[in-house]
Amino acid sequence: MSASRFRLPAFLVDFFWKFPHVFFLLKWLLISGIVGVLVGSASAFFLVSLDWVTNWRESHVWIIAFLPVAGFCVGCLYYYFGKTVEAGNNLLLDNIHRPSGIIPFRMAPLVLFGTLVTHLFGGSAGREGTALQIGGSTADQLTKLLGLRPRDRKFLLIAGIAAGFGSVFGTPMAGAVFGLEVFLVGSLRYNALIPAFAASIFADLTTKAWQVGHTHYQIPIVPELTLPFVLYAAGAGAVFGLCSIVFGELTHEIGAYLKRILAFAPLRPLVGGAVVALAVWALGTTKYIGLGIPTILESFQTHLPPYDFLIKILLTAITLGASFKGGEVTPLFFIGATLGNALSYVLPLPVGLLAGMGFVAVFAGATNTPLACTIMALELFGVACGPYVAIACIIAYVFSGHRGIYGSQRIGQSKH
Amino acid sequence: MSASRFRLPAFLVDFFWKFPHVFFLLKWLLISGIVGVLVGSASAFFLVSLDWVTNWRESHVWIIAFLPVAGFCVGCLYYYFGKTVEAGNNLLLDNIHRPSGIIPFRMAPLVLFGTLVTHLFGGSAGREGTALQIGGSTADQLTKLLGLRPRDRKFLLIAGIAAGFGSVFGTPMAGAVFGLEVFLVGSLRYNALIPAFAASIFADLTTKAWQVGHTHYQIPIVPELTLPFVLYAAGAGAVFGLCSIVFGELTHEIGAYLKRILAFAPLRPLVGGAVVALAVWALGTTKYIGLGIPTILESFQTHLPPYDFLIKILLTAITLGASFKGGEVTPLFFIGATLGNALSYVLPLPVGLLAGMGFVAVFAGATNTPLACTIMALELFGVACGPYVAIACIIAYVFSGHRGIYGSQRIGQSKH
Repeated sequence: MSASRFRLPAFLVDFFWKFPHVFFLLKWLLISGIVGVLVGSASAFFLVSLDWVTNWRESHVWIIAFLPVAGFCVGCLYYYFGKTVEAGNNLLLDNIHRPSGIIPFRMAPLVLFGTLVTHLFGGSAGREGTALQIGGSTADQLTKLLGLRPRDRKFLLIAGIAAGFGSVFGTPMAGAVFGLEVFLVGSLRYNALIPAFAASIFADLTTKAWQVGHTHYQIPIVPELTLPFVLYAAGAGAVFGLCSIVFGELTHEIGAYLKRILAFAPLRPLVGGAVVALAVWALGTTKYIGLGIPTILESFQTHLPPYDFLIKILLTAITLGASFKGGEVTPLFFIGATLGNALSYVLPLPVGLLAGMGFVAVFAGATNTPLACTIMALELFGVACGPYVAIACIIAYVFSGHRGIYGSQRIGQSKH
Repeated sequence: MSASRFRLPAFLVDFFWKFPHVFFLLKWLLISGIVGVLVGSASAFFLVSLDWVTNWRESHVWIIAFLPVAGFCVGCLYYYFGKTVEAGNNLLLDNIHRPSGIIPFRMAPLVLFGTLVTHLFGGSAGREGTALQIGGSTADQLTKLLGLRPRDRKFLLIAGIAAGFGSVFGTPMAGAVFGLEVFLVGSLRYNALIPAFAASIFADLTTKAWQVGHTHYQIPIVPELTLPFVLYAAGAGAVFGLCSIVFGELTHEIGAYLKRILAFAPLRPLVGGAVVALAVWALGTTKYIGLGIPTILESFQTHLPPYDFLIKILLTAITLGASFKGGEVTPLFFIGATLGNALSYVLPLPVGLLAGMGFVAVFAGATNTPLACTIMALELFGVACGPYVAIACIIAYVFSGHRGIYGSQRIGQSKH
C-alpha cells in the first residue's frame, strides 16, 4: 500500500492498513474520477467534431476526391512524428501485458486529427479505436504524475480503455466489461472491476454533462423465445462469427499486401484512398463510407439489399488496411446489422432483431468480447432481446477462431 | 475429441476433426438441451409445490408449532440416508474443482423434500440451494450415461447449476453467468460459455412451457445518474457488503455452536426449529419466515420498519445454521431489499431503487458473483437501474471479504 507516499495523517494511515479495501475503493474512485472527466470530455469533443465533419462531407461530396491526398498527408504525419504511437490499440494492450515506457500523450491528438481527416474525406472507418487511444494515452499520463506502480498502471490503462469505450457509445456497463475482457481471450479478471466501472461511469456522466447525446437504436419486435428460435439464433451466431473472420483476414491481407508493394508508408493510404474514392464514385452513393449510422438505423426497420455488408467489408478493409485512422467497431456494427438484415431473407426471425443481433455479434467475434457485447445490446436495445443476443454473441465468439482484430490480444484459454 | 465413440459416419468424423468448434457446439447444444429439459421440469414442479406449501402454511399457521419435530425428522432422514449428499452446494463446487465420484441422484429428491418441509412448517430459508442441487445432481447422472470425460463433467456440473438458477428465478442470463463465476472467486472462464448459457436458456424455456411463472419486481422511479448519486450508491454498496459478512458469519457461528453442543445431528434442527417457532409466536407475524416474497415486493413500494432486515438475518441464520434445507438466496434478497429500504431513511435515493440495489448486492457479496447479480437486476428490473446496481454489487463484492456462504468456493484472485 502506498498511502504513506501521500503523507496522510497517521490515524488515516492506520485505518487504511487495517481496511485496505476502503483505501483501494477511495483511491480508485478518485483516480477513475479524474480519468473519467478527462476522457469523457475528450469523447464529447470528438463526437461533436465527428458529427460536424460527417455533415460537412455529406453536403460537399466533391471532397472525397481528395481522400488519397489527405491519406498521404496523415501518413506523412505519422511517419515523421508518430512512429512511437502508430501501433495504436495494440500498443495499449501490449502495455497492459508487459508494462514498458509511458504511452506518449501525442497519441491522443494524432489519432483524433487522423480520424477526423478519415471521416471528412470519406474513408470507411469507426471511432472506438480513437476513443480507446485517447482514453488510454490520457489515462497513462497520470502514471508519472501520481507515481503509480506497475499493477496500478495496468488498472489505469484498463480504466482509460473502459472510459473511452463507455463514453463514446454511451454504454457505461459495456465499456467497463470491454476494458476488463479485451486484453485476454477466454478469461475475465475481477481485481480491476472498480477502476473499470468507475472510470466508464464517470466518463459517460461527463460526456452527457457536455450535452452530447448518442444514437438511439430500437428493435421493434422481439418474439417470445422458443426452441426453433434458439436454433435460428445459434445459426445466425455462427454466420456472424465467420463474417468476423472474413473481415479480420481481409483487413490483415490488404495491409500486408500494401506493405509488401509500397515500402514508403505514406504511399499506402494514398493508394488505398484512391481505390475507396473511385469505389464511391462508381457506386454513386456515400452510404458505405464514414460511420454509416443512417444505414445502421435503417437496417433495424426495413429490408436492405443483401450485399450491403459485403461492400462495407471491402471498403473498410481497404481503408483500415491502408492505415487510415479510425477504428473497426462502427463498421463492424454496420456489417453485422446489414448481414443480420440480409439473414432475414432466409431465417424466420424479425428483421430488426436479426439486425440487432448482428450489430453486436460480429463485433463480439472480431474482438473476442462476448460479454461486453451482450451487455451493450441490453444497454442499447433493452432487456427483451437478451437471450437472442447472448446466443449470437457467444457462438460468434466460439466460431471466430483464435485471431481477432487486435494482434496484441493474448489467448488466456482455448475457446472450447 | 470423442466423436468416434458414438460411431458417427466417417465423413462426419472427418468434418468434426477439421472443425472441432462445430462438434463442440452441436454436442453441447444437445447435452444442454437434455439438462435444460430435466432441470427446468424439476424447477417447475418445485416452484408449484413450494407455492402450494407456502399457501397452506399461511392459512394453517398452527403448523409452525411442529417445526421442531419436522426438523428432527428431516434431520434423521439425512442422518440415516443422506450422509453422502449432506454437503449440498459445497459438494457440487468441490466436484467442479476436483472431480470425484458421481453425485448420488438421491440428492435431488432429498433436498426437494427437505426444502418443502422447511417451508411448510415455517422455517426461514430460500430455494436456490435446492435448485442448484437438483440441477447439479440431475445433470451429473448424464456423466456415466454419456461416458463423459473429466473436463466435460465439469462443464456438465456448471450447466446443471446454471440451469437450476436460471429456471428457478426466470433469469436465464444471470443463471448462466452465475454458473460460470460461482466456483472461483475473482475470475470468470469462458470455455464453458456455451454449456452454461444453453442449459440455462433451455431450462428457463422448459419451466415456462410448464406454465410456471415468476414473481415480477418493479423499481418505480430511477433518477438520472449524477455524481452525488454515484457516491450514495457506493456507500450503499459498502453497507450491503458488510451485511453479507454479518449474515455469513452468523450462520456459520450458529452452525458451529449447535454442532458443539449437540453431537447427534438431528437434534440441531429440533432446537433451531423450536427457537424459530417461538420467535414467530412472540413476533406475532409470519412475514419473516418462508421465502418472504410479499415483504420483498412491499419493500419496492413503501417504507418498512428499519429493523426488518435484522430479524430476517437472525431467523435465517438460525434456520440454516440448524441444517434445515433450502437456500440462502431468497432470504438474502429479503435482507438486501429491506436493508436498502431502511437505507432510504438516510440516503436521498428513491426507496424502490435502494430496495432493488440491496436485493442483488447483498447476494453478490455473499456469493462473490457481482456480474451475475448485476445481470439479474437488468433481467428483473430493466436496464435503467443498471449503473446503480453495478456500483452496489461490485462494491459489496469488494467489501464482503474473502469468505462467502459457499465454503468450497476457491479464491482465484485477490479482490483488490
